[in-house]
Amino acid sequence: MNTPRIDGERLARRIARLAEVGAIEGGGCARLALGDADRAGRDLVCGWMRELGLDVRVDAIGNVVGVRAGRVDGAPVMTGSHIDTVGTGGRYDGNYGVLAGLEVVAALNDAGVRTEHPLAVAFFTNEEGVRFAPDMMGSQVYAGSLALGEALAARGIDGPTVGEELARIGYAGAAPVPGPVPRAFVELHIEQGPVLDREGVDIGVVESVQGISWTEVDIRGTANHAGTTPMALRRDAGWAAGALIACVRELALELGGSQVATVGRIEFFPNLINVVPRQARLGVDLRNTDEAQLQLAEARLAAHLENLRAAEGVDIATRSLARFAPVRFAPEMAARIERHARALGLSTRRMPSGAGHDAQMLAAVCPTAMIFVPSVEGISHNVREFTHPHHLEAGARVLLTVLCELAGGPALSAARTTG
Amino acid sequence: MNTPRIDGERLARRIARLAEVGAIEGGGCARLALGDADRAGRDLVCGWMRELGLDVRVDAIGNVVGVRAGRVDGAPVMTGSHIDTVGTGGRYDGNYGVLAGLEVVAALNDAGVRTEHPLAVAFFTNEEGVRFAPDMMGSQVYAGSLALGEALAARGIDGPTVGEELARIGYAGAAPVPGPVPRAFVELHIEQGPVLDREGVDIGVVESVQGISWTEVDIRGTANHAGTTPMALRRDAGWAAGALIACVRELALELGGSQVATVGRIEFFPNLINVVPRQARLGVDLRNTDEAQLQLAEARLAAHLENLRAAEGVDIATRSLARFAPVRFAPEMAARIERHARALGLSTRRMPSGAGHDAQMLAAVCPTAMIFVPSVEGISHNVREFTHPHHLEAGARVLLTVLCELAGGPALSAARTTG
Repeated sequence: MNTPRIDGERLARRIARLAEVGAIEGGGCARLALGDADRAGRDLVCGWMRELGLDVRVDAIGNVVGVRAGRVDGAPVMTGSHIDTVGTGGRYDGNYGVLAGLEVVAALNDAGVRTEHPLAVAFFTNEEGVRFAPDMMGSQVYAGSLALGEALAARGIDGPTVGEELARIGYAGAAPVPGPVPRAFVELHIEQGPVLDREGVDIGVVESVQGISWTEVDIRGTANHAGTTPMALRRDAGWAAGALIACVRELALELGGSQVATVGRIEFFPNLINVVPRQARLGVDLRNTDEAQLQLAEARLAAHLENLRAAEGVDIATRSLARFAPVRFAPEMAARIERHARALGLSTRRMPSGAGHDAQMLAAVCPTAMIFVPSVEGISHNVREFTHPHHLEAGARVLLTVLCELAGGPALSAARTTG
Repeated sequence: MNTPRIDGERLARRIARLAEVGAIEGGGCARLALGDADRAGRDLVCGWMRELGLDVRVDAIGNVVGVRAGRVDGAPVMTGSHIDTVGTGGRYDGNYGVLAGLEVVAALNDAGVRTEHPLAVAFFTNEEGVRFAPDMMGSQVYAGSLALGEALAARGIDGPTVGEELARIGYAGAAPVPGPVPRAFVELHIEQGPVLDREGVDIGVVESVQGISWTEVDIRGTANHAGTTPMALRRDAGWAAGALIACVRELALELGGSQVATVGRIEFFPNLINVVPRQARLGVDLRNTDEAQLQLAEARLAAHLENLRAAEGVDIATRSLARFAPVRFAPEMAARIERHARALGLSTRRMPSGAGHDAQMLAAVCPTAMIFVPSVEGISHNVREFTHPHHLEAGARVLLTVLCELAGGPALSAARTTG
C-alpha cells in the first residue's frame, strides 16, 4: 500500500471533459436538469464511476450513487454534489465536488487502499431548480424531506414533469428513496462568492447555509393603450412589477447583515411596447443565515405587495417555489475539516454558505459539512466562473484526507485524531 | 339618383367577418403585420373592394388603395386606416375606419351617385409597429417621410424583414411610393381612450395627434449568483430595469398635462430566479401633444438613465425605435367635420388623439382630419375593446357626408358649404 495522492491534472481533465457536454460560448455549460445535455453528462460520469470499480445505483428520483466497498459492510461515508447547471452555468459549480470525489476514489485505487467503511460518491438530481422547482430536489428526496410523488409531479418551465423526463432520459432508477443514511456526508464546492478570493484564503470551512425563500409573484392589472389611457386611470401590472423590484432591493439594504434579495426572472403580458401590461410575473429570491431575519424579509415583501395592491389597484397572487430554513452543520465535522486543511499547510476561514447546497439536506440525517475553495471574483452561475487549478487540487486533498479518516483509512495528514 | 344611406348592419357584418380572421379568445384579433393572419385579412378586404367595383392598387410597401372613379380624373379624396392589430387586439381599432370607408362606397353605389372627384379607400401596412418598427410604417412610406428601402429592411421581432414578409404573403405591389397625393384625407377611428364614453359625446373632432417617442433601453450588468453576491457588489441589470420603470412613471406624473409614459415590454437575461440578471431590455413609450414637453420628457428619461448608470455601475445603451412630433390637423377640415356632425344631430367634442394614427402621416401632404367615435371604458389594444353599433353607424354617417362634400357629391346634411 502506497500513500494515496490527488492527481490535480487528472481531476482537471475530467472537469474539462464534462464541460464539453452542453458547452456554451465563453467556456460555460447549459445542462438544465433532466434535459438531453444532463443525460449526456450523467452517462459520462456513470461511465467513469464504473471504470473506477464503483457499484453504481440510480434511485427513483434519479440520484446516482457510486459505492466503493469497505472492509466491512454497512453505511458508507458519502461525498458528492450535482452535475446539473443553470442556463448560463460555469464548469465548476457542482461538477467539481462530484469529480473530486471520483479523484479521491482514483487516488485510493492507485494506492491500493481499502477503507474500513464503504465510500460513496453521489450526484443528486436537479440541484439548481431552474427547470423544475424546488431546487435541491434530489437531495431532499434522498434525505426524506420531500415526498417522491410530489417531486415526480413537478412540472418544468417547458412543460413536462420530472417523472416524465426521468423516464425519457432513462434515469428513473430502482433504488429506494429516502436513501440509505450515510455515516457522514462531506460536500466539496467552489464558494460561488467573492470572500475567499478577496481575502486570499485557500479553504472555506462552511459552518452553515443561508436559508432560502423563493416566491413567484403574479400581478394582474388591465391591458390598455399606452397612448390614450391617462396615468391616473391605469392598473399597470408592469409598473407594479418595477416598483416591486425597487422594494426588494430596499428591504435587503434595510435588513443588512447577510440578507440578500434578488429579482432574477420577469415576464410581462402581452409584452408590447405600446400596451400597458395586463400581467407581470416575477421570481423573488430572499436569503439570510438567520431564520428570524429571513421571516422578517418575507413579512416586508408581503407588506410591499399589499401597498402595491392598494396603490395601483392590481391583483397580486404569490406562490412559494422553495423555502429552506438556515442550516447549521455539525461542529465536529467543521472542526475536522479545519484541522486537516491546516495540517496540509492550507489557510482556512470559517464561513456560511450564501448558496443552497445538497449538503444542507443531508445535514438532517447524518453528520455533514462542506469545504469551499475560492471562486475568482466570486463569479458563478456565469460562463466566466473560474477557480485556479491549484485551489481545485488543494480542495481535493482536503477531501481525500477527511474522507479517509471518516471511513477508517490511513492517516494522511498530521492532524489525525480519534475524532 | 337616391340619397345615399349608411347601412349600419352591413357595416357590422363586415366588422364581424373580418374579426373571424386571426380571432383570439374573448372576441379579439391577433393579426400582426405581414403574418399569415394579416394576409388572410388583406385577401378578405381586397375581395370586398373588388366586389364594390374599386380599382385595387397595391404599392411597394404593401399599402392597398381601392379607387372609385369620379366624373373627372385626378387626385382622389381618400379615407382609410389599417387592418393589422396588436397581439391582443380588438376588432375595431383600424378595421372600423377601413370598413366604414367600404360602407360609404357601398352607400354611394346603391344610390347610384357618382362624385366629381375619385374617392379612395386605403389600408396602410404595419400601423401598429408591434412586429416591425417603426409603427405607421405604410403611411409614412406613402407620404414620403420614410424611405422604402429602410422600411423593407426593418427586421421583425421574430426574425424576417418587412421585405421578406411582403414577398412571402404576396403583397409586395407594383404601385410606386411615395403614393399619389390625395385631395384630402379623412380617417374614422375609435377613440381608444375613455373621454367620449365618459362624457357621453357621440363624435370626437380630432384637432391634433400626440407626439410619440419610443426608446429601447438595453442595460448590461454582471450575471452572478443570487445567494452569494453581497448587495453592495452587484451590477444588477434587473434592478436597474425596475428602477427605470419607477422613474418612467414618475416623470409622467411630474410633467402632468397630456404626458403619458409606459414600459410595456421587458426581457431579462438569463431570466432565472437565482441569477442576478446580466442584461435587461425595455421599451419606453413617451407621448405628449406638445413637442417641447415631449423633449423635456426625453431629457428626463436620459437623466434617469445617467443616474442609474452611476448608481449601479451598469452600462446602458438606447436606441430610438420611433419618433413622431405632435401633428396639428388642418383647422378647416376639423371645422367641416364638426359642422356636419352637428347638422346630423350628433353631439361633438374637439380633442387631441392620444394614439398615433396613419392620418398624422397624410397630414404632411394634404388637408387631413380624423373623426373619433366612443370606445366603451376607453379599453383598446385588448380583446374587450367595444364600440356600440349606433356609434359605429353615426361615425360612418359623418364620414359619408364629409367625403361626399369633399369629393363634390350631393349635399347630405344641412351643413353643406362651399368650404
